[in-house]
Amino acid sequence: MTRISSILTAVRETTPLVHCMTNTVVPEVTANVLLAVGAAPAMIDLPEEAEIFAGIASALLINVGNGSAEQHQGMRLAAPAAAAAGKPWVLDPVAVGGLRVRTQLARDLLAHRPAAIRANASEILGLAGTSAGGRGVDSTDEVDAAVETARQLNAQTGAVVAISGPVDVIVSAGRTTRITGGDPLMPLVIGTGCALGATTAACLAVAQSEEERHDAVAAAHALFGAAGIVAARQAKAPGSFRTAWIDALHTLTPAEVAELVTSEES
Amino acid sequence: MTRISSILTAVRETTPLVHCMTNTVVPEVTANVLLAVGAAPAMIDLPEEAEIFAGIASALLINVGNGSAEQHQGMRLAAPAAAAAGKPWVLDPVAVGGLRVRTQLARDLLAHRPAAIRANASEILGLAGTSAGGRGVDSTDEVDAAVETARQLNAQTGAVVAISGPVDVIVSAGRTTRITGGDPLMPLVIGTGCALGATTAACLAVAQSEEERHDAVAAAHALFGAAGIVAARQAKAPGSFRTAWIDALHTLTPAEVAELVTSEES
Amino acid sequence: MTRISSILTAVRETTPLVHCMTNTVVPEVTANVLLAVGAAPAMIDLPEEAEIFAGIASALLINVGNGSAEQHQGMRLAAPAAAAAGKPWVLDPVAVGGLRVRTQLARDLLAHRPAAIRANASEILGLAGTSAGGRGVDSTDEVDAAVETARQLNAQTGAVVAISGPVDVIVSAGRTTRITGGDPLMPLVIGTGCALGATTAACLAVAQSEEERHDAVAAAHALFGAAGIVAARQAKAPGSFRTAWIDALHTLTPAEVAELVTSEES
Repeated sequence: MTRISSILTAVRETTPLVHCMTNTVVPEVTANVLLAVGAAPAMIDLPEEAEIFAGIASALLINVGNGSAEQHQGMRLAAPAAAAAGKPWVLDPVAVGGLRVRTQLARDLLAHRPAAIRANASEILGLAGTSAGGRGVDSTDEVDAAVETARQLNAQTGAVVAISGPVDVIVSAGRTTRITGGDPLMPLVIGTGCALGATTAACLAVAQSEEERHDAVAAAHALFGAAGIVAARQAKAPGSFRTAWIDALHTLTPAEVAELVTSEES
Repeated sequence: MTRISSILTAVRETTPLVHCMTNTVVPEVTANVLLAVGAAPAMIDLPEEAEIFAGIASALLINVGNGSAEQHQGMRLAAPAAAAAGKPWVLDPVAVGGLRVRTQLARDLLAHRPAAIRANASEILGLAGTSAGGRGVDSTDEVDAAVETARQLNAQTGAVVAISGPVDVIVSAGRTTRITGGDPLMPLVIGTGCALGATTAACLAVAQSEEERHDAVAAAHALFGAAGIVAARQAKAPGSFRTAWIDALHTLTPAEVAELVTSEES
Repeated sequence: MTRISSILTAVRETTPLVHCMTNTVVPEVTANVLLAVGAAPAMIDLPEEAEIFAGIASALLINVGNGSAEQHQGMRLAAPAAAAAGKPWVLDPVAVGGLRVRTQLARDLLAHRPAAIRANASEILGLAGTSAGGRGVDSTDEVDAAVETARQLNAQTGAVVAISGPVDVIVSAGRTTRITGGDPLMPLVIGTGCALGATTAACLAVAQSEEERHDAVAAAHALFGAAGIVAARQAKAPGSFRTAWIDALHTLTPAEVAELVTSEES
């Protein structure tokens, strides 16, 4: 947990600027979450601007959920621009597997070496072509079912691969971390997954080495899991849970995060 | 109220997947509301994906408020795809009447036989060409002024027609239901009407017959009216009302909904 | 403060219809804020509809943050349409200076004589070409650094120019007003600046003369500053602050606004 704490501290001390190219549902909650965790959001989709900004920002998120053809064109320019500038970028393959346009987009983008891929189990399987993707909330079993595929995606792309679920599993070369936290109310608040992808980008922006990228991804997941636990103590329904969860993302100290969640590495 | 209760119970038990094509203002609140009531949202606008997904989802919402030309093209493909697959779809003709592009779009879409049309009185009149549409919140009188037009729209398209206002009126062949609930704070929270269109689609997804479609539309309106009453007991301003209202949508039992609102059929 | 109070009262009494063309992140919070302060929002971006609606609405907001090429085309039609109809319009030059497409757009739009320009100091400097624009929250010094440039923009365009920061400075021919209010949590809630642009448009809609436009801009800033002070008394983190702030925008009386903020004219 020491590395996780230092990552979270570094985000708050350096306010990384996260360039977000995300779906039409979650820009506002994603921006509020980035501000709450200590980062700075910038949503920029227009191809001409996105290509330039990806090289300027601290990190880039590409979330292929509901977007326009124009935004997709921007993503195809921004991913290589981030890679060329040495900036980490995160791929969130929302609903990939079953929908043809975004599935092709996400697979094409893998060539530009994302620093991390964050998704639920069905999406990981869908991205790899192992299944046609899912529709609902993942079960723990599904997370386990995707670990082998995550390992293959890591070998193929170099990306740290995070599978979100009741237990999050984070996979990179030779490392597997399982983080237990959160609450059943979290999937009832839209954008908790998408904003986790953005927060993962914020944490990657402060990673000091390739090795530390695994810890950065784990840090984002630990923070989200801890905030879910705290929010559930205060709220029993999704409207008030959402408010309490954003408050917790802002107020939790790295030490509190470490106490709240369980992190096991194998 | 028995049928309304069974519809609401069925939504929670079966988690219908609602394909939403909606305006740029309300995707997040619409998704949060669908999750709160027990359904699953999927916003998919890209024409190539929307056409396929409309046949896969449990129900489709088409809300013609602020959207792009590309999304409009997607709507023109999705409505017939839903109809061809026998999936119910809801038309929400936001601000139709006064604005030329969306008015033409909404009228063209009527040919694909929506299962329901949900709107305020001015929009119902605007859709039918009876008036140029309105701009503000409807009065009860205006709701009554639109009932005849709603009946004509039902005769023309087969759709259950719901007119939202202080008293909601739901019209189909031989049936008229008036539902009294809600609160004056509801129109001060953006998306309460648009999310009602999406919830109407979720309820239609579990209707077992053409006849039960009327009850499904009434169930969505009863749930919204009841949640508005409960939220107003806890909150006196629109920010906290919004949170309490989403909480209430999630926690109210079908029996509590039946106790809170008045439903009169004639 | 008398004029500020009368502007805020007139907004609540007349419910001005504000046509908003804004970025993808903030439509929902902007609409909720306009409803809370007593105005009516309408987001309309499609070029064919925006051009017509700009002449119908009470006022227009053009916010050049993250938007599509299609929306930009709509803005280029709406601004002259508003000007031709004698309707006040507000330019919010989000992130102008560093990003080429929106910088050119914002500068081109100046020809259509906005009634007000609202931005942070870096954006004011970026719009005028004095600097390449900023990325973060402005300091008080930066606000002061932009006052001369704001005065030049006013001379060039006729617009009242408002520079947002810990102290807001509002500049027009021969008048400078400094408004002190708000809270450090405000910049941690996305859209507080963008929604201020929209509220500025709502206040301009009720201004009775060119002279009163300065007071209308000041009124919007005073209301936002006062609501920030009240929200900070109730909430210590950004999730709950956002809720309390929207509540305060709705419940504060003009007299309370005058008591809470400091307004100095020189």
